[in-house]
Amino acid sequence: MAKRIDFQTEPSRYRHWKLKFDGDVAELIMDVDETAGLFDGYQLKLNSYDLGVDIELNDAVQRLRFEHPEVKTVVLKSGKDRVFCAGANIRMLAGSTHAHKVNFCKFTNETRNSMEDASANSGQKYMCAVRGSAAGGGYELALATDHILLADDGNSSVSLPELPLLAVLPGTGGLTRVTDKRKVRRDLADAFCTVEEGVRGTRAVKWRLVDQSVPNSKFEQAVKDTAKKLASTSDRPADAKGIAFTPIERNIEDDAVTYSGVKIEIDRATRRATLTITGPSEPPPASVADMHKQGAQFWPLRLARELDDAILHMRLNEAEVGVWIFKTQGEAAQVLAYDKFLEANKDNWLAREILHFWKRTLKRIDVTSRSLVALVEPGSCFAGTLAEIVFACDRSFMLVGSFQGDNRPAAAITLSNLNFGAYPMSNDLSRLATRFLGEPESVEAAKAQTGKPLDAETCEEMGLVTSAFDHIDWDDEVRIFLEERSSYSADGLTGMEQNLRFAGPETMETKIFGRLTAWQNWIFQRPNAAGAEGALKRYGSGVKANFNPERV
Amino acid sequence: MAKRIDFQTEPSRYRHWKLKFDGDVAELIMDVDETAGLFDGYQLKLNSYDLGVDIELNDAVQRLRFEHPEVKTVVLKSGKDRVFCAGANIRMLAGSTHAHKVNFCKFTNETRNSMEDASANSGQKYMCAVRGSAAGGGYELALATDHILLADDGNSSVSLPELPLLAVLPGTGGLTRVTDKRKVRRDLADAFCTVEEGVRGTRAVKWRLVDQSVPNSKFEQAVKDTAKKLASTSDRPADAKGIAFTPIERNIEDDAVTYSGVKIEIDRATRRATLTITGPSEPPPASVADMHKQGAQFWPLRLARELDDAILHMRLNEAEVGVWIFKTQGEAAQVLAYDKFLEANKDNWLAREILHFWKRTLKRIDVTSRSLVALVEPGSCFAGTLAEIVFACDRSFMLVGSFQGDNRPAAAITLSNLNFGAYPMSNDLSRLATRFLGEPESVEAAKAQTGKPLDAETCEEMGLVTSAFDHIDWDDEVRIFLEERSSYSADGLTGMEQNLRFAGPETMETKIFGRLTAWQNWIFQRPNAAGAEGALKRYGSGVKANFNPERV
Repeated sequence: MAKRIDFQTEPSRYRHWKLKFDGDVAELIMDVDETAGLFDGYQLKLNSYDLGVDIELNDAVQRLRFEHPEVKTVVLKSGKDRVFCAGANIRMLAGSTHAHKVNFCKFTNETRNSMEDASANSGQKYMCAVRGSAAGGGYELALATDHILLADDGNSSVSLPELPLLAVLPGTGGLTRVTDKRKVRRDLADAFCTVEEGVRGTRAVKWRLVDQSVPNSKFEQAVKDTAKKLASTSDRPADAKGIAFTPIERNIEDDAVTYSGVKIEIDRATRRATLTITGPSEPPPASVADMHKQGAQFWPLRLARELDDAILHMRLNEAEVGVWIFKTQGEAAQVLAYDKFLEANKDNWLAREILHFWKRTLKRIDVTSRSLVALVEPGSCFAGTLAEIVFACDRSFMLVGSFQGDNRPAAAITLSNLNFGAYPMSNDLSRLATRFLGEPESVEAAKAQTGKPLDAETCEEMGLVTSAFDHIDWDDEVRIFLEERSSYSADGLTGMEQNLRFAGPETMETKIFGRLTAWQNWIFQRPNAAGAEGALKRYGSGVKANFNPERV
Repeated sequence: MAKRIDFQTEPSRYRHWKLKFDGDVAELIMDVDETAGLFDGYQLKLNSYDLGVDIELNDAVQRLRFEHPEVKTVVLKSGKDRVFCAGANIRMLAGSTHAHKVNFCKFTNETRNSMEDASANSGQKYMCAVRGSAAGGGYELALATDHILLADDGNSSVSLPELPLLAVLPGTGGLTRVTDKRKVRRDLADAFCTVEEGVRGTRAVKWRLVDQSVPNSKFEQAVKDTAKKLASTSDRPADAKGIAFTPIERNIEDDAVTYSGVKIEIDRATRRATLTITGPSEPPPASVADMHKQGAQFWPLRLARELDDAILHMRLNEAEVGVWIFKTQGEAAQVLAYDKFLEANKDNWLAREILHFWKRTLKRIDVTSRSLVALVEPGSCFAGTLAEIVFACDRSFMLVGSFQGDNRPAAAITLSNLNFGAYPMSNDLSRLATRFLGEPESVEAAKAQTGKPLDAETCEEMGLVTSAFDHIDWDDEVRIFLEERSSYSADGLTGMEQNLRFAGPETMETKIFGRLTAWQNWIFQRPNAAGAEGALKRYGSGVKANFNPERV
């Protein structure tokens, strides 16, 4: 699995998905090319998927929001005759490393969450038309939509057969969405998860697993009706024109990836990466019309796309780079001007999409299993939206004054209104509200300083950064922190960070990433699943798995 | 580790704890006998603990509530000179099986939760006087109290050094209580968890890790003052007399344990246990005074103690018995009469304690990693409090009518007021509210039937049981379910059940059992911790652990 996984694609290159447009309804058709797996060693039969299939889905979901403001309902369906989707490919799972399985699940979870985000926040509703069997990850795809129609044809069914077939859990939110989104009764959920062949027809409705069971003869019409009904609830604009997601510019070298506004530099000896973000070089456009004209080149959108790609690239392709150091360079005032522009125009569909895109990208940082540190240095522009990165980090260090012989302006953090609610974490609180859970008055104190450049000592005093050091101590303090961090167990760090980052309320999303994912990771390692005689390894071999019956 | 672990003890047999009483303040003094470990192969140095130490603590916490109504504040302290508590014994952890580590953590978590339960619900406040170092599990003990005093003597400190020392997480709620109970800022929490030597003095207060830092000379007085202050907030009775926790009667055989009101029968071939609970043989006492006179023999209390012991015994000593079948026999009317008695007297301190004891025992069932099924048959008495067991199970089956030639009364479930809030799950909802999360009207419908015996078909219709079968289908249906259950992976079942049982809101407790525990279980298996070159194995050997740097 040494080849680089690329998260960039576009509809003309899709192998597994088709998009069809008809006014305010789009069809997102899963039609997996079984010969086009991301890796060798398996065939994507029965509309099963691997990471490559999901990379295309993620791309499609993003483009639907930005390139198609006219689309109010997305109908997810299968392009195959007798199967909706068989879920994650089992041979792929069986042949994957533990790390790949975990990262694969994380990304698929993020993609499904982004479908729900479109529905909740940008009036682009998702519905699912299930004909044939929707098994495991196939049903989990359906669960991520607002409305599930199931054909009542004696064949179509929904199922989560992971436990009986593979000895693992549905790893993409299935259990959580069954209990917490669809609110299926726990004993029925338990029964459902053990019925390999799944549940069909009216029973699926009765158990709350789907919303409608419709005879074949009326299926197409019911799908149309529901799509229209969902579209009628949308607040998307009637006659807006989308913007084109032009290809991201990037230059990939062995130890560096350079985008227009993000630069990744990897130090392999110390296993650290520095991600440097460059602020805007131009002021924001004069009008919303000009923003639309700039399209994908509009600085906040361009940067969000680049940062998103950078995060995914580093996560999947650079697993041993355990510490990410975030830096910025540029003019804070310019960053803040863009924040103001977005805030002032947040009712415009495109500005709204950009704000939600930033929200999702920042959430990707939150659930990234790397140690994250922000170095706030002279010449940096951690302001407003970019200051969120400081608050997303496990630690942040800020320089008091200047380095010797450096005449860039001293480090400052400036808050904008967007730091107070525009970018909720998955716990539904802002990063500052989460940070100051024990002292809500500190959130108010920070709000009162909005727009003012706050120097290092002030930021430390206000609790906005972990520590402020002057140039005499800086190098040593940062070095010691980085060296210590590298000395710890990668797994221990992941577990610790995932527990410390999400104080406060839990949501379905935190349950999926915190509870379900952790259990799934545990099970993915257990001999009963992953061992030589485990269910994943023996699936399809004709030999039954050999289980250790001990309950842990 | 083949010897049977016994959860029954009493103060005269304690090896590790001392209790001192002074009016409304009790001292709970940890003074671990390093030679008295539960297993061979380690010494409990520096007030470190193993399961045996915690079994005594659990006993003490229980007795403080029942035997000492006069105690309003419990002061947790160390009996050693220069150390408070070094946490879970590392050699014990290093030598334990994965299953033992996980079960050990579960029990210690439950014990700490029961301290918080005493404080929240029965006016018995816990505080902690830390002199010396409170490290890892030692600090986690302190975290479970309402108030932490730390001696400011240049030596006393609190720490969670698990990550740097052992490559594991603080497994007994530490991370969650730091972020969610004490609301420590996440970057300070992150820093705290990497400082091996811990945090002392005023910094510990500033970081919210402790409540007070007090110079040695004023320490004793400050402890006294705080104890009195906490006691003054208590609603415990001034002049009540406690009841004695007389030894539980039980008879332990190879494949059976028989208590007065609970019988465990193990079928080793199928790896199933049947737990049969017998209803009361006498009506409730005429008055509260009579209840006090009956003391530990009062049926609901006697049964709770027996059931609690049975659960712990089965969990720790019978790991391969993967399915627990719950049955009852007796008169529902009698069970309901006790429910009425407890409800009518719930302001009496003893009745209150009994209700909370049942709550905690039912919660133990909820987090037990076994498949749980209730068989509701003729002659059973799943009514009120005992009906909670049906709702705690993963599945429940109920017989319609009678078995042939059986003249016991047909199966019925009768609800009491106690089913609607007296026994919240760890998500803070009643089992019925959790069950009917998607259809709250079903809770109301159930409430309207309170006091009426509901037959099998009605219960199935109302969603109170999973399925109702007549005598023709019963044997086959139950057999098929049990056989299927036995065929699944033990780990997969555990992960599935833990995800399906707790729909709805999350609390600190569900975070601890769901999120933190799952991550800890994951890490406990990772080579970086548990492998031959891992940190747990190499601790104290002088050889550094060899970590795989890959981030998962």
